[in-house]
Amino acid sequence: MSTDRKKKNVRPNSVKTFKAPPKGKGKRSAKSAAARRPKRVSKPSVRISFLGGLNEIGKNITLIECEGDIILVDCGMAFPDGDMLGVDLVIPDFTYIEQNYEKVRGIILTHGHEDHIGGLPYLLSRVNIPIYGTPLTLGLVGNKLKEHSLFNKTQMMMVNSGETIKLGCMEVKFIHVNHSIPDAVAFAIKTPAGTLIHTGDFKIDCTPISGETIDLSSFARAGDEGVLALLAESTNAERPGYTRTEQLVSDSLNMLFNKAERYRIIIATFASNVNRVQQIINCAAKYGRKVAFSGRSMVNYMDVAKKLGYLELPDNILIDLDMLDKYPPEQIVLVTTGSQGEPMSALSRMAYSDHRKVMVGEGDFIIISANPIPGNEKTVGNVVDELLKRGCKVIYESMYDVHVSGHACQEELKLIHRLVRPKYFIPVHGEQKHLRKHAELAEFLGMDKKNIFIGDVGSTIEINEEYMKPLAPVPAGKVFVDGLGVGDVGSIVLRDRKHLGQDGLIIIVASLDVYDGHVISGPDIVSRGFVYVRESEGLLDEVRKLALDILEDCADKNIHEWGIIKNRIKDEVAKLIAQRTRRAPMILPILQEV
Amino acid sequence: MSTDRKKKNVRPNSVKTFKAPPKGKGKRSAKSAAARRPKRVSKPSVRISFLGGLNEIGKNITLIECEGDIILVDCGMAFPDGDMLGVDLVIPDFTYIEQNYEKVRGIILTHGHEDHIGGLPYLLSRVNIPIYGTPLTLGLVGNKLKEHSLFNKTQMMMVNSGETIKLGCMEVKFIHVNHSIPDAVAFAIKTPAGTLIHTGDFKIDCTPISGETIDLSSFARAGDEGVLALLAESTNAERPGYTRTEQLVSDSLNMLFNKAERYRIIIATFASNVNRVQQIINCAAKYGRKVAFSGRSMVNYMDVAKKLGYLELPDNILIDLDMLDKYPPEQIVLVTTGSQGEPMSALSRMAYSDHRKVMVGEGDFIIISANPIPGNEKTVGNVVDELLKRGCKVIYESMYDVHVSGHACQEELKLIHRLVRPKYFIPVHGEQKHLRKHAELAEFLGMDKKNIFIGDVGSTIEINEEYMKPLAPVPAGKVFVDGLGVGDVGSIVLRDRKHLGQDGLIIIVASLDVYDGHVISGPDIVSRGFVYVRESEGLLDEVRKLALDILEDCADKNIHEWGIIKNRIKDEVAKLIAQRTRRAPMILPILQEV
Repeated sequence: MSTDRKKKNVRPNSVKTFKAPPKGKGKRSAKSAAARRPKRVSKPSVRISFLGGLNEIGKNITLIECEGDIILVDCGMAFPDGDMLGVDLVIPDFTYIEQNYEKVRGIILTHGHEDHIGGLPYLLSRVNIPIYGTPLTLGLVGNKLKEHSLFNKTQMMMVNSGETIKLGCMEVKFIHVNHSIPDAVAFAIKTPAGTLIHTGDFKIDCTPISGETIDLSSFARAGDEGVLALLAESTNAERPGYTRTEQLVSDSLNMLFNKAERYRIIIATFASNVNRVQQIINCAAKYGRKVAFSGRSMVNYMDVAKKLGYLELPDNILIDLDMLDKYPPEQIVLVTTGSQGEPMSALSRMAYSDHRKVMVGEGDFIIISANPIPGNEKTVGNVVDELLKRGCKVIYESMYDVHVSGHACQEELKLIHRLVRPKYFIPVHGEQKHLRKHAELAEFLGMDKKNIFIGDVGSTIEINEEYMKPLAPVPAGKVFVDGLGVGDVGSIVLRDRKHLGQDGLIIIVASLDVYDGHVISGPDIVSRGFVYVRESEGLLDEVRKLALDILEDCADKNIHEWGIIKNRIKDEVAKLIAQRTRRAPMILPILQEV
Repeated sequence: MSTDRKKKNVRPNSVKTFKAPPKGKGKRSAKSAAARRPKRVSKPSVRISFLGGLNEIGKNITLIECEGDIILVDCGMAFPDGDMLGVDLVIPDFTYIEQNYEKVRGIILTHGHEDHIGGLPYLLSRVNIPIYGTPLTLGLVGNKLKEHSLFNKTQMMMVNSGETIKLGCMEVKFIHVNHSIPDAVAFAIKTPAGTLIHTGDFKIDCTPISGETIDLSSFARAGDEGVLALLAESTNAERPGYTRTEQLVSDSLNMLFNKAERYRIIIATFASNVNRVQQIINCAAKYGRKVAFSGRSMVNYMDVAKKLGYLELPDNILIDLDMLDKYPPEQIVLVTTGSQGEPMSALSRMAYSDHRKVMVGEGDFIIISANPIPGNEKTVGNVVDELLKRGCKVIYESMYDVHVSGHACQEELKLIHRLVRPKYFIPVHGEQKHLRKHAELAEFLGMDKKNIFIGDVGSTIEINEEYMKPLAPVPAGKVFVDGLGVGDVGSIVLRDRKHLGQDGLIIIVASLDVYDGHVISGPDIVSRGFVYVRESEGLLDEVRKLALDILEDCADKNIHEWGIIKNRIKDEVAKLIAQRTRRAPMILPILQEV
């Protein structure tokens, strides 16, 4: 179905043209970069800068620069590590893009996952750049931009896989790939310096649920014509073999639906995995069950997928969450978020009896159709334990084949390398261990080590037919988003949060005589997160006495420099506390003059 | 070697006797429980209470009570979860033991891992109970008690595997098992109500590195004579098949030592895994390398193991860490802690260039001879990434067989069930999912569901030939140790720590006129962990003005109740901050009267 729709605009070997995008608030120069270019003297080079996605999972964003034109590939976000306390999400540092704003011809998007599009609202609120993507990707981006009131300001150009667009001196072909979200593409970017292939996220599925197998022939043709450099994703570079086909999940789901009999079925999966949800819907139809969606992002993704025709829905199969009670359990499938054990997700709320509409118990057959992303093992395990305690049947992890990865394993990566046969190779999208493994794999296939570049966030590399050389890094890094604040939480704030979170704090407040510095009121001691106060009154009394002695001593000695007084209080109180408790709470003396 | 030593005191079928332990500070009654017992009217029962180890990993401690006598099996600690901020370790709630102190005849220990002995110092600092264990276990306990100045107060009775001791009305046979630490035992506890088998941690290794294969014949004999209940560990109950023999690791290590050639070898493993270290030493001897130990716990464990003869050391093979530079890299093996990526461990310090004595780089061949414990995947991955960035070769996870588990998989568990053939079964040592899986396995082997009990921390069960019934739970739970404080960090303190860590705090300090309540000094605003202050002066000024308005308004309206004033400030400032930033820092108004 969706295949036909997606194909209707494909004109092979032609270049799709758009009306010139409207200018962005006068900052963008009207003169094309080509017109400003001096006469070429030597063979052209292309520069690639990585603003994210290397030595980290997420925040994928690559900048390709040739003869004064810049293209951005993706603009993702990352989830915060455990030590980024209170941070909601992490976005790239956009300084370099802002500095080179007038050269930027567009952002091309590989697919609609957060680690590839999640940074867009933050970039587009600073600079206005046109976006090019496939229908589903743009649908998801559009929703995101509406939330940030950026939808109307942004030019979004739809490109179907198979089509080619021109951006400045470069031509970009959108190549269909398989992944865990429909409408994903790789790019063949023809630059004056040569062709670059950027795979985006991909796998090779010869029997996908919807759409076609990855367009291997476009990779092959590019290889035949000559590829300067391959940038390929490394997520599964440590895994031997092949990622198994999504069809396998269908078989497992069928078997489990059969087994679930009179139970209510609840399936948790990634909201973006439209094909997975399609399979669940197909099973539901077969076994005479209605489908309800739970979780904000599940509802949102399914809305977009429905609207754009990516979800095939038998009549009347969807019901509202409020209607659950109108049906017996054996006629229900609840599709929910929370497959990663996220504390606020629908499944977690069910597990901890905190969901407003769904109570789980012995009548529930729960399938977690996802593997824990590294770092989430513990939280997923806790949710499973809670569900089991409530008497639910739970299918999780590798008990049945209820999940396959969306990323290429070693044999698939090798195949792409063999088809593309690039001169240079740059492994992308992965931590150091993934990048190294992918580099080893390229070496194993015969590539010269010196033609492989393992970079870092900020790395810039210049490539042409003769050489590949690293340039000075560009400004890049992590910018933290906390609530409405973008970038106002930095390392000092995080250090304080960590200190407060680990050890709590003791506040010492006193009012001093403006004339002689003697204590007029206090010192009062307030503590939070340190000890249970009622049981530690003795210790806090000692602190009070010590602080009073120091303040009076300073007054007697005519020491009125508050910095000195505060430091003495901090040091001596810290020493007392360490002696008594072997702890190191933050100590905050606050003085007022009266 | 160690086998002979361990065997020398074994007198099969005899009961080992100890001089009556000295009485504990007069609290312990001299009269034996048996003497106080009323004439028996019905068949006796045994009560089992779980103070830890169910629905959690760690903190294993089981209480067995029969006819007025109590035995404790193990007394472990657990590591804090991510949400127990600043907590160093978690120990059981000992209330029930203290309440029944005079019935407690002794603590029997299965082996020397922290999750089985780590709670001892905290229990023994409250009540004096004799300890019974194998030589290595007592060696490790001894070190621990010395650190807490409890060594001289505690009676430690050495029992070799194969021996039987009498504790009140019960007889306990120490049965040799295989595990990832030498000298581990299971218990056959003969009570007036029938025999209980407690497996402790175990696996079946038919070719162990030192000592013998698990004493299956003792399990079999107990089974033949009749077993009332089996308590068996569940750590690997989800894993099919068999845990592979430790010998496998020898083969892999040999191959890797051969491969490492001119590199320095660094191997991280669990400090308690004496057999693993023995294998490393054997390889080192074979390949002409010296061995150095790094990491406090590695040095401590190896000291005890050496002293007690559990480590076979070729002459002059050990060198001090300070001597590393005196040898070329190909003559060195460094055995280190940090296989779980613990931030303060030796390997982490090396990875982050923070180790005082060891710098790592391109000349290093690093083997992580352990699998990440669930929850540690991310930190282990980070350490691997850092080592790779420094150019080290790193062997990690399942790349080669450099690690095998210490716990029985499904086939081994089945074998023990078949040998023991208990009337009742209680899965222990595991989260809910492990306990459930182990219960399913027992059912699969034909056991009636109603004869299986899945408990929780605090659960108490009464068993005799006729029935198994749950009783009211006993006091039990988690007690947090933070620095020197035991139990002074509770849920309120943790909630505050979490709040402070996530959102930071804003303190509002003002001095008020004691007569009319008007502001004399302040309000001053101090924030920590909230925003980078220099960039948010405007917002903090707004907070100051708002607080001043509220204080003056209260004074004008003759509101002098500080609780009311503070709540108004908290509420209105929180509203302002949420509006401006969508964040919720802790807000602490502090008022002083002058």
